[in-house]
Amino acid sequence: VTCDVASDAQLALLLELAATPKPGNVDRERDHPDLRFEQFLAGAVGARAGLDAAAAGAPVGIAFETAVDGMAARAQDNTQFGALLLLTPLVSAAAIAGEVTRTAAVDVLEATTVDDAAQFYRAFEHTDVRVADPPADFTDLDVRRGADAIPALRSRGLTLSEVVVASAPADGVAREWATDFERTFDAADALRKGTAPLPARISETFLRLLADAPDALVAARHGRDVAERVSERAAELVDADRATVDAWADDLVEAGINPGTTADIVAAALFVALSRGLCR
Amino acid sequence: VTCDVASDAQLALLLELAATPKPGNVDRERDHPDLRFEQFLAGAVGARAGLDAAAAGAPVGIAFETAVDGMAARAQDNTQFGALLLLTPLVSAAAIAGEVTRTAAVDVLEATTVDDAAQFYRAFEHTDVRVADPPADFTDLDVRRGADAIPALRSRGLTLSEVVVASAPADGVAREWATDFERTFDAADALRKGTAPLPARISETFLRLLADAPDALVAARHGRDVAERVSERAAELVDADRATVDAWADDLVEAGINPGTTADIVAAALFVALSRGLCR
Repeated sequence: VTCDVASDAQLALLLELAATPKPGNVDRERDHPDLRFEQFLAGAVGARAGLDAAAAGAPVGIAFETAVDGMAARAQDNTQFGALLLLTPLVSAAAIAGEVTRTAAVDVLEATTVDDAAQFYRAFEHTDVRVADPPADFTDLDVRRGADAIPALRSRGLTLSEVVVASAPADGVAREWATDFERTFDAADALRKGTAPLPARISETFLRLLADAPDALVAARHGRDVAERVSERAAELVDADRATVDAWADDLVEAGINPGTTADIVAAALFVALSRGLCR
Repeated sequence: VTCDVASDAQLALLLELAATPKPGNVDRERDHPDLRFEQFLAGAVGARAGLDAAAAGAPVGIAFETAVDGMAARAQDNTQFGALLLLTPLVSAAAIAGEVTRTAAVDVLEATTVDDAAQFYRAFEHTDVRVADPPADFTDLDVRRGADAIPALRSRGLTLSEVVVASAPADGVAREWATDFERTFDAADALRKGTAPLPARISETFLRLLADAPDALVAARHGRDVAERVSERAAELVDADRATVDAWADDLVEAGINPGTTADIVAAALFVALSRGLCR
């Protein structure tokens, strides 16, 4: 049995979900009032068809839109949109290049087309995604317009990579596309190096990423100041005992502060780590 | 997006896993010292290729052996062998008949062949499975012999259904094959009828099944008396408050008493419930 790339990606979603504590996010010990653990399980199952498509060589846009469609149908909410926007090109890269490298991932991004971008806009029709306002020269391409933005997209002739990278200033997932997955691969190295049990390494990696940079989803929902304070507190707790981190995790859930972008990067990093040998 | 049968089966494994409390079993709140939550996540991912094969019309024996092989490779242990022995023919039935009914499931069992039985014996090569001693006239077909039993199997010309049903007196999964999945479909009805959140319905269904009949895995490991006492206690706790059931769940994990057969039936029942409309 080989650990095929689509199932590496699916397992990455599930391992990221279960690891605890992941302050502010749904984890094995915490639900949000309106977003429950089992919805993320369902989302990971529903996304599988899109991940299979990416592994089989489908264009990134089609694979992503299929994954989001399946996720939303199963989870009945947006559980893993950002994670799938990272995983889909990484799965494509693994399938095309035979292994996941930053170079292979960049090749996939550079090969995206206007058609891929159109599928990306269609993906926003399947579920509500919280995003920042678009850059001033992108109001006609606001992703919240969904498929209605496709004529403007086609007339401007932008590829998926160009559309995503334009959001990088305000969107931590887009920033990974713009930086050749820098934080994703750094986090993957951290995940592979530790000696603690994997769930503990995942939790620690989450906290270090959160300490490292304000979470974009928190900034979009609660403002830049809140996002920066959350990261400062994460930095203080990187070496704290488990009970202290657990207490903070409860506080963040209580306050509805959900560093979802950081979780997305952890899921992508887990995929890279798994496909580089964690599972074999 | 349709909720295809293979992903219904995979989600059934994951929802069964996460529901808590499920006294004695790994659940969202409990690990066994040597069997952890994330191993079950990995097992559900690894089993997917076999479930896909069943959904695509592969013979039950090949689909089951593929599922067990993938499960064991990912989980590095036996996490869901019994559940897969129930799910594989049910997925086949759903794929062939277009819906999961007891009649369709019986048709699948009756169509199994000697080749299917040979694959079943090969599946035991992939992982350690705790089973009861075989009936007196089955010592040459003891599943613990793995593929070494295949020549005896071929000379006796037994089908997979005949081999499994022969174990029914001591094996609760085999008994489902022998009784046309009676408890599986009853439990599926219970899962669909409740009004509580799904995880709570799963937990309650588990407790009622355990109260209803001694768990075969507990009997194989700890003796019939222990299995009967566990079921008597489950019957007392069916209407107990959550804290009381939680405390008993902790006690059983502490004592290493793991009603795994009951969990297998819950997973199969979840698949039937999902494929009959829970997810759509």
